[in-house]
Amino acid sequence: MSSLLISEVGPRDGLQSIQAVMPTAAKHRWIAALAAAGVREIEVGSFVPARLLPQMADVAEVVAHALTLPGLRVAALAPNFRGAQAAFEAGVHKLTMPVSVTEAHLLANVRKTHQQMEDEVRNVVALRNERYPHIELEAGLSVAFGCTIAGAVSDDETLRVAARMAALGVDEVGLSDTSGYAQPVKVRRLFTRLHAELGRQAGGAHFHNTRGQGLANVVAALDAGVTTFDASQGGIGGCPYAPGASGNIVTEDLVWMVEAMGHATGIDIDRLLQARAVLHEALPEEPLYGHLPDAGLPKGFTYADRAAP
Amino acid sequence: MSSLLISEVGPRDGLQSIQAVMPTAAKHRWIAALAAAGVREIEVGSFVPARLLPQMADVAEVVAHALTLPGLRVAALAPNFRGAQAAFEAGVHKLTMPVSVTEAHLLANVRKTHQQMEDEVRNVVALRNERYPHIELEAGLSVAFGCTIAGAVSDDETLRVAARMAALGVDEVGLSDTSGYAQPVKVRRLFTRLHAELGRQAGGAHFHNTRGQGLANVVAALDAGVTTFDASQGGIGGCPYAPGASGNIVTEDLVWMVEAMGHATGIDIDRLLQARAVLHEALPEEPLYGHLPDAGLPKGFTYADRAAP
Repeated sequence: MSSLLISEVGPRDGLQSIQAVMPTAAKHRWIAALAAAGVREIEVGSFVPARLLPQMADVAEVVAHALTLPGLRVAALAPNFRGAQAAFEAGVHKLTMPVSVTEAHLLANVRKTHQQMEDEVRNVVALRNERYPHIELEAGLSVAFGCTIAGAVSDDETLRVAARMAALGVDEVGLSDTSGYAQPVKVRRLFTRLHAELGRQAGGAHFHNTRGQGLANVVAALDAGVTTFDASQGGIGGCPYAPGASGNIVTEDLVWMVEAMGHATGIDIDRLLQARAVLHEALPEEPLYGHLPDAGLPKGFTYADRAAP
Repeated sequence: MSSLLISEVGPRDGLQSIQAVMPTAAKHRWIAALAAAGVREIEVGSFVPARLLPQMADVAEVVAHALTLPGLRVAALAPNFRGAQAAFEAGVHKLTMPVSVTEAHLLANVRKTHQQMEDEVRNVVALRNERYPHIELEAGLSVAFGCTIAGAVSDDETLRVAARMAALGVDEVGLSDTSGYAQPVKVRRLFTRLHAELGRQAGGAHFHNTRGQGLANVVAALDAGVTTFDASQGGIGGCPYAPGASGNIVTEDLVWMVEAMGHATGIDIDRLLQARAVLHEALPEEPLYGHLPDAGLPKGFTYADRAAP
């Protein structure tokens, strides 16, 4: 039996992708319910200007509340030095900086060239090393498997950016299938190389379920030794005009599947469904995705760490 | 590059699971559109009494029409000798008999004990051998990965029924996750043993997407050497009261994923989506599932057999 870290990114990736703004008190309730279900790491928000993402205007407050939840690792995202500084000051345990593999996506997403983004990461690493050595820093490689703007992305291209980020001194480099282009063969190949080339700096997987392939990619990533998976409760953040074309892989389905496969997550599925109810109550208009919540647990299901020998 | 057989079961498994009855002419149009998209095998119906499944009352007519489509392998299902005889007379190329691994499911599904079902299969094999030696005969093992009535099903239990069916002389034994209990670790283990123990009589995989794990199970089955996969266009047949809890794995998503992985199916996805439109026109009230139809093909997608070297 192995142990996996499921990193809930709904409060960040989900909430920033929808029109509605969840009230701060509701964010507190939802995050607390997730933590109570046994979720050990939650990306609670993004440190970006409120005029760009009003959904994230309360991020410092949300971090402060999340830090009061016992045992929870509080993660956040920041696309630049200014955001990273604010996140460090807020006291996050982990910070992820999104770094697009293709320059086309980088320019569209954060209006920076690769050179400018590297400078940004270098400065953040320096600040972290000097003043916040206990905070974990991750580079999350966006469009690592293909790009809606540039199209196909070669393995070498992704690994080159990964190596540059590792050399700059981030703790880990994760691979994100931002656009839902990944398929299992490429996932297995890329993560195998990431581990071989980056060693302990190889990070986790962030998959979207855009073409229904999210959990299939998880199987491939598990084969390649990945032990950290991002997921979003209810798969929130999917295109509202494309029913079923959900955003991130659905936490509920993921936890069920990997537990059934024998990987312990520490998460209780019944309580995870209670957190889903809290989310639904806060955003009653927002469609929530996932199959497990409708189907329920199979008869005779046992958690990985409670399985009969 | 390997080649896979995608066996479309929507006209059988999908249509028999919904309330609406598709008119015969619409079935003809839909099956023809699927064949035109390059689908090489279609399970067009089930030979069962019309009073039990009125959706299948026209099965002989549907078979007759499907036989006029060039290059198409026409498959059907029959749960007993009488149905098999009718299917043989209708001229199907392939017949599948559903055999539940658990006696509880067998009794509920076809009101037979294992002993009675074995007698039925033995008689069908004898008839096939004597009068229809060219027709392929498959035993499809229902609830092979777990049972909604009996709960957990051990690997040995499934393999024991598989071995009995092989000994009775069917051409192949497939494994069906009728109830959506399968997970990738069990799928890989069971199909690996099926191949080891049955050799050339090891058949294909029939997965449901009940808990969102359908394509994840496909990845595991591919690892174990499976080359035939059932799927249903639009995933029709899901519980109407459980949105997203689709029935079979969705043909559109499956074909996209395996082609992207480098497995040739012979199916053209644009034309497959045209067939989906024919299905939607025939059953406008029925929800169709799948992600690829909403998301479209990724930029730079190439079919396995047209990939750049």
